[in-house]
Amino acid sequence: MTTTHLVYLNGDFVPAHEAKISIFDAAVMLGDMVTESTRTFAHRPFKLEQHVDRLYKSLKVTRINPGLTPAEMTELSLRVLDANLPKVTPEMDVWLVHNISRGLSVAGADPTIQRSPATVIIHTAPMVLTDWARFYTEGCHAVTPASRAAPPEALDPRIKNRSRMAYTLAEMEVKLVDPQAQGILLDIYGNVAENKGGNFFIVSEGVLKTPPTRNALAGISRSTVLELAEQLRIPAQIIDFQPYDIYTADEAFFTSTPYCIMPATRFNGLPVGDGAVGPVTKALLQAWSDLVGVDIVAQAQSQLSMTR
Amino acid sequence: MTTTHLVYLNGDFVPAHEAKISIFDAAVMLGDMVTESTRTFAHRPFKLEQHVDRLYKSLKVTRINPGLTPAEMTELSLRVLDANLPKVTPEMDVWLVHNISRGLSVAGADPTIQRSPATVIIHTAPMVLTDWARFYTEGCHAVTPASRAAPPEALDPRIKNRSRMAYTLAEMEVKLVDPQAQGILLDIYGNVAENKGGNFFIVSEGVLKTPPTRNALAGISRSTVLELAEQLRIPAQIIDFQPYDIYTADEAFFTSTPYCIMPATRFNGLPVGDGAVGPVTKALLQAWSDLVGVDIVAQAQSQLSMTR
Amino acid sequence: MTTTHLVYLNGDFVPAHEAKISIFDAAVMLGDMVTESTRTFAHRPFKLEQHVDRLYKSLKVTRINPGLTPAEMTELSLRVLDANLPKVTPEMDVWLVHNISRGLSVAGADPTIQRSPATVIIHTAPMVLTDWARFYTEGCHAVTPASRAAPPEALDPRIKNRSRMAYTLAEMEVKLVDPQAQGILLDIYGNVAENKGGNFFIVSEGVLKTPPTRNALAGISRSTVLELAEQLRIPAQIIDFQPYDIYTADEAFFTSTPYCIMPATRFNGLPVGDGAVGPVTKALLQAWSDLVGVDIVAQAQSQLSMTR
Amino acid sequence: MTTTHLVYLNGDFVPAHEAKISIFDAAVMLGDMVTESTRTFAHRPFKLEQHVDRLYKSLKVTRINPGLTPAEMTELSLRVLDANLPKVTPEMDVWLVHNISRGLSVAGADPTIQRSPATVIIHTAPMVLTDWARFYTEGCHAVTPASRAAPPEALDPRIKNRSRMAYTLAEMEVKLVDPQAQGILLDIYGNVAENKGGNFFIVSEGVLKTPPTRNALAGISRSTVLELAEQLRIPAQIIDFQPYDIYTADEAFFTSTPYCIMPATRFNGLPVGDGAVGPVTKALLQAWSDLVGVDIVAQAQSQLSMTR
Amino acid sequence: MTTTHLVYLNGDFVPAHEAKISIFDAAVMLGDMVTESTRTFAHRPFKLEQHVDRLYKSLKVTRINPGLTPAEMTELSLRVLDANLPKVTPEMDVWLVHNISRGLSVAGADPTIQRSPATVIIHTAPMVLTDWARFYTEGCHAVTPASRAAPPEALDPRIKNRSRMAYTLAEMEVKLVDPQAQGILLDIYGNVAENKGGNFFIVSEGVLKTPPTRNALAGISRSTVLELAEQLRIPAQIIDFQPYDIYTADEAFFTSTPYCIMPATRFNGLPVGDGAVGPVTKALLQAWSDLVGVDIVAQAQSQLSMTR
Amino acid sequence: MTTTHLVYLNGDFVPAHEAKISIFDAAVMLGDMVTESTRTFAHRPFKLEQHVDRLYKSLKVTRINPGLTPAEMTELSLRVLDANLPKVTPEMDVWLVHNISRGLSVAGADPTIQRSPATVIIHTAPMVLTDWARFYTEGCHAVTPASRAAPPEALDPRIKNRSRMAYTLAEMEVKLVDPQAQGILLDIYGNVAENKGGNFFIVSEGVLKTPPTRNALAGISRSTVLELAEQLRIPAQIIDFQPYDIYTADEAFFTSTPYCIMPATRFNGLPVGDGAVGPVTKALLQAWSDLVGVDIVAQAQSQLSMTR
Repeated sequence: MTTTHLVYLNGDFVPAHEAKISIFDAAVMLGDMVTESTRTFAHRPFKLEQHVDRLYKSLKVTRINPGLTPAEMTELSLRVLDANLPKVTPEMDVWLVHNISRGLSVAGADPTIQRSPATVIIHTAPMVLTDWARFYTEGCHAVTPASRAAPPEALDPRIKNRSRMAYTLAEMEVKLVDPQAQGILLDIYGNVAENKGGNFFIVSEGVLKTPPTRNALAGISRSTVLELAEQLRIPAQIIDFQPYDIYTADEAFFTSTPYCIMPATRFNGLPVGDGAVGPVTKALLQAWSDLVGVDIVAQAQSQLSMTR
Repeated sequence: MTTTHLVYLNGDFVPAHEAKISIFDAAVMLGDMVTESTRTFAHRPFKLEQHVDRLYKSLKVTRINPGLTPAEMTELSLRVLDANLPKVTPEMDVWLVHNISRGLSVAGADPTIQRSPATVIIHTAPMVLTDWARFYTEGCHAVTPASRAAPPEALDPRIKNRSRMAYTLAEMEVKLVDPQAQGILLDIYGNVAENKGGNFFIVSEGVLKTPPTRNALAGISRSTVLELAEQLRIPAQIIDFQPYDIYTADEAFFTSTPYCIMPATRFNGLPVGDGAVGPVTKALLQAWSDLVGVDIVAQAQSQLSMTR
Repeated sequence: MTTTHLVYLNGDFVPAHEAKISIFDAAVMLGDMVTESTRTFAHRPFKLEQHVDRLYKSLKVTRINPGLTPAEMTELSLRVLDANLPKVTPEMDVWLVHNISRGLSVAGADPTIQRSPATVIIHTAPMVLTDWARFYTEGCHAVTPASRAAPPEALDPRIKNRSRMAYTLAEMEVKLVDPQAQGILLDIYGNVAENKGGNFFIVSEGVLKTPPTRNALAGISRSTVLELAEQLRIPAQIIDFQPYDIYTADEAFFTSTPYCIMPATRFNGLPVGDGAVGPVTKALLQAWSDLVGVDIVAQAQSQLSMTR
Repeated sequence: MTTTHLVYLNGDFVPAHEAKISIFDAAVMLGDMVTESTRTFAHRPFKLEQHVDRLYKSLKVTRINPGLTPAEMTELSLRVLDANLPKVTPEMDVWLVHNISRGLSVAGADPTIQRSPATVIIHTAPMVLTDWARFYTEGCHAVTPASRAAPPEALDPRIKNRSRMAYTLAEMEVKLVDPQAQGILLDIYGNVAENKGGNFFIVSEGVLKTPPTRNALAGISRSTVLELAEQLRIPAQIIDFQPYDIYTADEAFFTSTPYCIMPATRFNGLPVGDGAVGPVTKALLQAWSDLVGVDIVAQAQSQLSMTR
Repeated sequence: MTTTHLVYLNGDFVPAHEAKISIFDAAVMLGDMVTESTRTFAHRPFKLEQHVDRLYKSLKVTRINPGLTPAEMTELSLRVLDANLPKVTPEMDVWLVHNISRGLSVAGADPTIQRSPATVIIHTAPMVLTDWARFYTEGCHAVTPASRAAPPEALDPRIKNRSRMAYTLAEMEVKLVDPQAQGILLDIYGNVAENKGGNFFIVSEGVLKTPPTRNALAGISRSTVLELAEQLRIPAQIIDFQPYDIYTADEAFFTSTPYCIMPATRFNGLPVGDGAVGPVTKALLQAWSDLVGVDIVAQAQSQLSMTR
Repeated sequence: MTTTHLVYLNGDFVPAHEAKISIFDAAVMLGDMVTESTRTFAHRPFKLEQHVDRLYKSLKVTRINPGLTPAEMTELSLRVLDANLPKVTPEMDVWLVHNISRGLSVAGADPTIQRSPATVIIHTAPMVLTDWARFYTEGCHAVTPASRAAPPEALDPRIKNRSRMAYTLAEMEVKLVDPQAQGILLDIYGNVAENKGGNFFIVSEGVLKTPPTRNALAGISRSTVLELAEQLRIPAQIIDFQPYDIYTADEAFFTSTPYCIMPATRFNGLPVGDGAVGPVTKALLQAWSDLVGVDIVAQAQSQLSMTR
């Protein structure tokens, strides 16, 4: 039995290491690809329908015709999972990633005319959490780079896309401060925006706060936290805030598909609150674990112990 | 004899239709690739050294290690040309394109550590000019989209990179006005910035004007025009201007590698100057043709007549 | 019996075609005039008191002394209606427009000193709805121009005034995309602002959203929709949003005095929702018809059938 | 002999007090009118050709069809002067003002279709300079209001137009500081822009500076000063500057058609330089007087003495 | 018995006129000092705990180590009050001011290393209210300067600090309009921000509104008003607004430690509402008096009568 | 013989350790103090006249009355030098610092009325260069913080003042990257502005570039470099540039009074040019040494060797 995952690529299922696309694909030539990333919990896909729905919003706004209906996309996604989940242990979950480009790129051509079928890729990969595992208990170090998030009039962050050079460069500035730090981009007005691949929350005097989606991906992990907060009767606000609010917050955390909730206990070298993971963060993590039937923290930490 | 071009791809020369990269390449997953595009004139590469120099600036700022020295990159480029120029007729010139990504992408990893060799692609393709040929005599229609260029604090336009989703979406807005129109992006302050793949110039009362590189790629075609203007004693200014200046200019044109200089004779539905290609534009085109020993306009138009 | 409407002009009632003002009036020389536009439904003025109240806010902020109390202005308005309503059929309603300028303009003079009595104009005109009639069922095409709304630090959009050159020029850019399109101005930060003569709403997942008045006239039609939404228990938010929100909305519409609610079923060439007029829009239109005792859609469509 | 000036109005010559336009004209309803103001010196028009040229730029950008060629407009302008100059004494000069609107306004209509002939007005009026006369020797008080100039992405200040409400309101803020003060608008970034009807210059360490036209009308008086400076070998820069530069300048002045050059000797309550009209300002005024064969200062002051 | 107040200064209690710090202190050399100002009511400190809490937020964000715990700071504050309250009459209350600098400044040194103990100053002074007393009944004149508040990306206004040059210069512009005026700074986007030492509120159609803390100190007087409003069931919004909202408000007032609530009855020369102190303002002032057991207005006015 | 320097403080000469000011001084309470810093070379003051001239510009714009004429200020400055230069060895030079505050601060008072004499401080101190000495040969590490320079509409950087909290906090962010790093503030538009106490230059393809003073102090060291460049026939531009320009420059350096020119050989972790101090930088340093008759580098390095 092989553990190589199979990738859905334009109608075929191919082993991951053989999954390749033309160097003339619009994804390569123009970063012209939209994307979704979800994961499984206990081998069940998480909010797959919402991810597919958001994928079709990105496709619509970018005017890419994927050549598949949402139902077909969902069906294919489940087939990719079926093909690959048996390859991982019950303790290990997987990413489920959609990448859809505009197909082959033709130099100088009118982009409104899609000259070839879209490139449709659906792949899975083991959900390796070792990089983040210790942050569940220690918290990570959040840092603001000098570069800023592009404003929505240039490119709306809600279009989940693969033209991410700006995010990569900003994250490199963050690593200059601390190679383990996680970046928090500010927008061009100095408001807190988002992480290169996630959203950001603070807790101040019992109230949960996260920036509006003008500046940030409308993350499904973000909305999961807002739903859990409502269940737990934690008041929540979608509101612009600034670095001062993080410096003086009681708790802070990132949200993203792989780690769900990642506590941040330092910000630009100063402790957030008392420097420990706080009770609201813990309660939300616990509620998420309950929701999906997987102890999120334990899962990550067990990977860590295995790699030691 | 085959006409399939050979592509340099990570140490090998492979036929273009077989040139593929992993779906996990940073170019695909993150648009994390820098690029250059030059062309030949009469089968001689144009300013190859300057393109390689700019490529290494992009590599430096993005902290990608290409694994090759500039001299090696130049040498490889010439080998790619040598391999492919015999496949095209003497009348046809070719693109010479460099694409260098950070190599394989690993989810969530520190981008400052390049975990695998860079992906290095050098390819050629026939310089098909039919889309632009008629614009040399008629001029094109320049249009400003509602979307704006990202500011340099988000991503400096001088890093010639493949995260170009924003440019593609803006160009689609332009095509809503006129499917043949060519876009002129404004920056977020309302100044004229650049085209999705070129620079923009106007001529007003005998003075040539182009925006500073705060808002625009430092195009090699752009600097060629500035050099030619100096030879022709046409005064030139690098200066911010706004749509009003285009509406009231005497002449206007785009510059880019494939077409060199593309006259624009309409702007947002109104004629530029008297609506015909102007004398300064023609003089610059002629000077460029003289410089490279190729009649640029004739070359394009001969392609057009062949395709009719 | 003549059908020529009588205009109140500085104390006199004159036939519309004879209603003229000096070429030296501040309205002509400086666009220095505030205004209101309401209409009748079944020959009854709609929210006249609110319009007069807002008119006096505009007069206050622009420091124009109209020489009349709000009560006198209301009284005169009713007299203008009385003079003209008999001239139209029961099926036809009328505009009721107030235009008040600072009086005669003197070159270079201190504008805080009003050197002559204000010019006070109150006029009516048949409410011709043929341009908009088909949009009630088909919806219109909403388009964003490249030009942007002036920020309130230059001129607050809530001062309802006649210096509207910027709106006219932006609307012309919109017509380049589609001669039937209706413009949606963005503000200089890329947020949705307003139409040249109306407000804009979207419906997303059951929630009605419209921008705050930082960017938009505090329209009385806008507040009527918000009141009707409350009656119909449709949740509503006054919130900044961006083009992405319109692309991905379920419904969208404009509001303004003549048409009340104008559905928008396309946005920059893409369908809004499923491309048909949506249920929330229809419910609000019906509630408005109920409120005023006139079937708004039927009234417009009957005009259309008459003109065919 | 009457002293009433005759106005050219849509083909007719009518006495000024009878020159009226419909209350439904686009000038009245929408501020939709472009304009020029020049003057005579010793009864000869000043740079009429340049004014007509700029007028046609404004007409082009606003897409108003005046129904007259530039040559016809010039010819009519001279006829208006011929009709009225005999009515003033040789010592008195006159304004020559062009106002061109889009014609009758129709509610809700597509502004790209001009539904009626343009309204063309050319009028003269005695050049009364008494308000400014004492400023030639004392200098005026320049003050910055809190309101800001609209950015060119909203309305380019080089379109000389009659939608001037924002300028009027800003000037009123200035008069709160000093009823005799003259306003200097800042742009939305804090740079010095322009006066409501003129341009602004400073002299610092012998160098003349005025803002670029991004923020300001491309005034013909402004370009006259730049030409005179070149003749007098005074170095000049077109450059952004801020209030600090005015506070610390040696000299400052406004330029505009009626007064040509108006020295400013106070700025926000502080003296500019030593608080007296400076040598560069005086030299430029003298050169302008020489250019036009009229002692500009003496002309204004003689009016003042007559009115005492 | 002396009436000289004793100042706590770095461990000692010294008479106010002898309380001096080195000219090399970071407060002097760099404005590098954070601060709090509270007051007593009937000789009892008002919300001292909240002020100390905010002081420690400012200390944290500025990375100044005060060398004292919050409890020690509170204890010292009470000792300063005990030492000085006997020196004032029962009718007179006192300021209680904390000023903490980073200690001695060393040229060019790394500011993250505090090279000497912090300078800790706690002082009191009689609460002289004569400058504001008449405003309780007449209201003050609020004026917007041309200068703008620094954005939070430069310096967050919530860090209560002594680098206040910008506030002083803006207030001077305000005094050009009216020597008795009180300034309202706008932010760089044209929104109402704050006063040089206080917050600003309006009342419109029964709703209390104050800007968010992006633009303004998170004033403890501000939060007191919001608490009192909740008690009085006056609806309140934390929301961005612009000068138009003040011009058209029914009531307006400032809040700050010394005067608590200062009605503003004029704005840029125009009356706010009917130009008299309004009922909501009065109700809030009364509620505050009730809260602290001191008739705030009477206290101020009694001082005024004494000084006449 | 004592080595304690004497400080001029409000008319007296007092030993530095006894030089103190009231805790109620406007410098302490409001950061309301302007300043100058020059130094001696070989015990001769450098450009003292220019520093006094700029000091009086700052005093004018801040409306502080120093109570001394420029000539008196210069005379006092020379007396302070005379009193203290004998206390240092011939090899050691001194700072000469002016600090002028508005005098005693009164709570809530009108700042336009200076209620007490200005506080005038003139002090010297040995020019200790050990912190910078090694940078002359190695170059320093330049880093951009996330915080931004305040725009001139908030506080013009050319007013050399002591409200420097924002600079201190930004420099602390820089030290997070590298405790030895020197900060380069960006302005709020992403352009390079200035260092907390100096200006910044790059050399690109032989051209020297430094930002305009919109964003930066008009440094006297900066203008010295521009003068030296003219002497050495090095072309120079005053022009906005961005981080990309620094990353791709050949050389870079800071200028400030103590160190004159400080080479920067790294920028945000990457080498500038080849990572060594470049020839233009060296030539300018040599020319400055020649100008003042002191080997600047040798002076600093000799201090370093002494402290080892």
